[in-house]
Amino acid sequence: MLTPAIVLVNTQLPENIGATARAMMNFGLGELRLVAPREIFPNKRAYELAGNASSVLDNARLFPTTRDAVADMERVYAATARQREMVKPVYTPYEATTRILQDNLKTAILFGPERTGLSNEDTTIADGIITIPTASALSSLNIAQSVVVIAYQWLQSGMAGGVPADNIPFNLNNKSPFASKEELQGFFERLERKLDDVDFWNVPEKKQKMWMNLQNIFTRANLTEQEVRTLHGVIRDLNKPV
Amino acid sequence: MLTPAIVLVNTQLPENIGATARAMMNFGLGELRLVAPREIFPNKRAYELAGNASSVLDNARLFPTTRDAVADMERVYAATARQREMVKPVYTPYEATTRILQDNLKTAILFGPERTGLSNEDTTIADGIITIPTASALSSLNIAQSVVVIAYQWLQSGMAGGVPADNIPFNLNNKSPFASKEELQGFFERLERKLDDVDFWNVPEKKQKMWMNLQNIFTRANLTEQEVRTLHGVIRDLNKPV
Repeated sequence: MLTPAIVLVNTQLPENIGATARAMMNFGLGELRLVAPREIFPNKRAYELAGNASSVLDNARLFPTTRDAVADMERVYAATARQREMVKPVYTPYEATTRILQDNLKTAILFGPERTGLSNEDTTIADGIITIPTASALSSLNIAQSVVVIAYQWLQSGMAGGVPADNIPFNLNNKSPFASKEELQGFFERLERKLDDVDFWNVPEKKQKMWMNLQNIFTRANLTEQEVRTLHGVIRDLNKPV
Repeated sequence: MLTPAIVLVNTQLPENIGATARAMMNFGLGELRLVAPREIFPNKRAYELAGNASSVLDNARLFPTTRDAVADMERVYAATARQREMVKPVYTPYEATTRILQDNLKTAILFGPERTGLSNEDTTIADGIITIPTASALSSLNIAQSVVVIAYQWLQSGMAGGVPADNIPFNLNNKSPFASKEELQGFFERLERKLDDVDFWNVPEKKQKMWMNLQNIFTRANLTEQEVRTLHGVIRDLNKPV
């Protein structure tokens, strides 16, 4: 059984990294990845909060960007409460953890910085959004407490034997393995370059939004390696001189 | 719908009181009771961690003992991971919150101090124990993170419409209301005094354990007011000079 990696993006307080490590170990998660934390890591305050979960911090890996941190992943979820103008499936912690268990793919769950949460760019990478249901009076969760909820739900779903979610859009019988995020990113880079070349965006100010929406379409499709190769071919061929 | 009160017993770090308040507001709980916190309350560091949940701290009530804090309650749960030599039902967070929803009684959930957890004396007051399932590698949860899990599960159970637990031992059709903890305590005091009088314990060193077990029997019975009155009568009559 593959267990998901927790990816903390631009975390401001080392205490939250430590509390995250402790919650991970409480609920059976071990792989922590840190994207450019604000304070130097390893960090004394993080270890203080981690307590007996120091091994999670010892094994944590640092990455310069979110893209790098998820390059080897097959599925990425973004934990965020913010409503976004993106067409992405939104899951409860229960739905997401059940899905992760059933997919049994290399999966990362992204958590954004304390004040701002995940950027739209980082959220775009994700296949789905995890939103923790909260009371209307206060919907903003502390980052380490969000990790607690999702890690707890992960262990719960596992103990329940991975109760099926309502519907599973992924083709589990597909012969070709799912594309890694790195492969998908390679396709995106080629596509963006080509679209730039052909002046696809018309008005430059519109590019950011349009490009995000485009990437979301392909991300949502859960492409296999074979399909990414096919799409590479499509771009190459469409771009051929006639 | 009655929502449970959170009772923090002898909390050492004001930060944990603040983080508890925030988690409570996140998941729809409002009533916080503090039993003799180690540092003076209200406390600046607690408010810093509470963030936008300062109203929960504003309304928190202080009590000298756990008994006082739950005197007006009809049900008490103890959140603890420690195995105890007590015959008490042990519930998962899901089972406990479902039960609390269905009972719709005045309920408190006790959380012990950071280092030691709840004392046996405080656990004895409880009708049931809530134990959060954890991975074997690290079973000790931070107190505020325990509150997060139980408060999250409370909101989840409520959103699910209070899915029935497997079995409900409480007689919800009982005509007499359940005894409050204060009424039960009044009975215990009378019983203990009488047992002391008759030298029931034989060996003094054995009293503590024996008395705890005895109290647990009556606590587990979920006595109604009428039943407590009856038991008072039983003691009185048994103690009459013949």
